Amino acid sequence: MPGPVQSIERAGAIIQLLARGYGGLGIGDIANSLDLAKGTVHGIVRTLQAIGFVEQDHSGGKYRIGPALRQLGTGYLDANELRSRAINWADALAARSGEAVRIGTAQQDSVLVVHHVFRPDDTPQTLDVGALLPLHACALGKVLLAYDSDLTARIRAGKLESLTRRTMIRPELLSRSLTEVRDNGWAGEYGELVPGEASIAAPIRSHGGLTVGAIGISGPAERLFPTGIHANPTLLDYVRDAARAVSRDLVEDR
Amino acid sequence: MPGPVQSIERAGAIIQLLARGYGGLGIGDIANSLDLAKGTVHGIVRTLQAIGFVEQDHSGGKYRIGPALRQLGTGYLDANELRSRAINWADALAARSGEAVRIGTAQQDSVLVVHHVFRPDDTPQTLDVGALLPLHACALGKVLLAYDSDLTARIRAGKLESLTRRTMIRPELLSRSLTEVRDNGWAGEYGELVPGEASIAAPIRSHGGLTVGAIGISGPAERLFPTGIHANPTLLDYVRDAARAVSRDLVEDR
Repeated sequence: MPGPVQSIERAGAIIQLLARGYGGLGIGDIANSLDLAKGTVHGIVRTLQAIGFVEQDHSGGKYRIGPALRQLGTGYLDANELRSRAINWADALAARSGEAVRIGTAQQDSVLVVHHVFRPDDTPQTLDVGALLPLHACALGKVLLAYDSDLTARIRAGKLESLTRRTMIRPELLSRSLTEVRDNGWAGEYGELVPGEASIAAPIRSHGGLTVGAIGISGPAERLFPTGIHANPTLLDYVRDAARAVSRDLVEDR
Repeated sequence: MPGPVQSIERAGAIIQLLARGYGGLGIGDIANSLDLAKGTVHGIVRTLQAIGFVEQDHSGGKYRIGPALRQLGTGYLDANELRSRAINWADALAARSGEAVRIGTAQQDSVLVVHHVFRPDDTPQTLDVGALLPLHACALGKVLLAYDSDLTARIRAGKLESLTRRTMIRPELLSRSLTEVRDNGWAGEYGELVPGEASIAAPIRSHGGLTVGAIGISGPAERLFPTGIHANPTLLDYVRDAARAVSRDLVEDR
C-alpha cells in the first residue's frame, strides 16, 4: 500500500488554512502556521496558484482561495479561457491542414463548440460557435467521452441517437471505440455525424493531465481517411501537434 | 524558483475530475481519464481521503468529493471529532498531571472549550464545555493564535481586554509572546486570566501540520510555574506528550 503523499497533505493544510481566513495570508504567515520552511511553502503555493486553487490578492502580497476551488464542480474550464488560449493554434491548424477546425468542451451532455475556424477554401460555411454536437457522433465528443467515464456512463444510460447509418448506436461498440481513443490518444469519426464527412480530434489537457477540451478538424471523408480505414498521417500529426501546443500553453501560463 | 509539484497538480486534477461527476469514480476511471497508472492514482486518492478532500461512497467502491472540500471555509475541525479523538488522552493527562484539562478550538474570535476534565482532587468544579475564553489571556488561546496569523490580526485589530493586571493588553507584547510560542512549540500563561492561576498548552495538529486545536492544563500558578518563570518541566512534558498523541491519532485514522 502506498503511503500518504507529504506534499499533498501540506497542500491540503494550506488550502484549509487559507479557507479559514478573511484577509489572505503571506508566505511567512503560512510557514509559521504550519511550522514549515518558507521555501517549502513557496513551492507548494506556486503549484496551487498554477492550478487555480489559490490566488494572490490585487496588491500582490497575500494568498487566498482561488477560483478553481470557489467554483469547484461548476464544470469544465471556462470556455472563454479555453478559446483565448487556443485561438492562434486553431488558425495555424486550419492553415496547415486545409480543413475546418473546431474546439469543443463538454456541456449539457453534448459537445459545445467554443471556437470554429472556417476551412480556408472560400466555400460558403456557417459559423457554429455555440452549437451543441452529439458526443457519440463526432471526434471532438469521442475525445471528451474517452477521458470522462462519468459523462460516458450518462450518455450510455440514454439512447444513442442515430444520425447516419454509420452512427455508433450500440453502447458496447461506443465503449470499445473509446478504449481505442485512450490507447491512441486521438479520436476519429467517419460519416457518423454527416454522410461523407469525417473528423479527427485530440485532447486538450490541463494541469495533472485533466482533459478540459478537444481540438479537431473535419472535412470530406476521402481526405481525412484516404484508405477508408487509416487516418491521413500528415493531418493526424497536425491535429495532435495543435492539441499538444494548446495544452502546453494552458499549463505554462495560466 | 521551485518548479511545480507534480503530485499536487495530479491531486488537483483528481479533485476537479471528481467535482464534475455525479456518480463517483473508481480508481480505474480516474487513471483512464488522466492517463496515469492505477498505482499512482491510488496513492494520491488515499492521501486525499486521509485529509477529507475525497471520500468513498457507502458501497465502498467509488470516490467523490469529501467533507473537507464541501465545507471548505466553514472553519476548524468539527468540534465533535476533535473531542472524540482527544477524550482518552485528556483523561490520561489529568490523571498524570493532577490538574484540570481543557481542549479548545477557535470560534467567534474566542477559544471554544470542547472538552473539560476536572482536576482529580475532589474539589468542587464547574464544567465549562461550551464556554468561550479570551484568546489572548489563556495558554489554549495563545497556541491557537500562534499558528493562525489571520486570527491574530483580527484580535489585534480590536481591543485586548484586561482581565487581571497581568493580562497582555499591549499588541506588541502579545505578538512577541506568540513568536515565543512558535519557537517553543507550547504556550504558558501566568495569572493573565485569573489571579494566581496559570495554564500550559500545546497544539493539536492535523495533516500537513495544520493546527486544529489545543490541549492544556490549568491550576495554581505555583504548581505550574514553581519558580515564577519556568514551567514545571514534568507537567510541560505531560502536556506536550498528550498533544502529540492526539495529533498522531487525528492523522493516523481519520
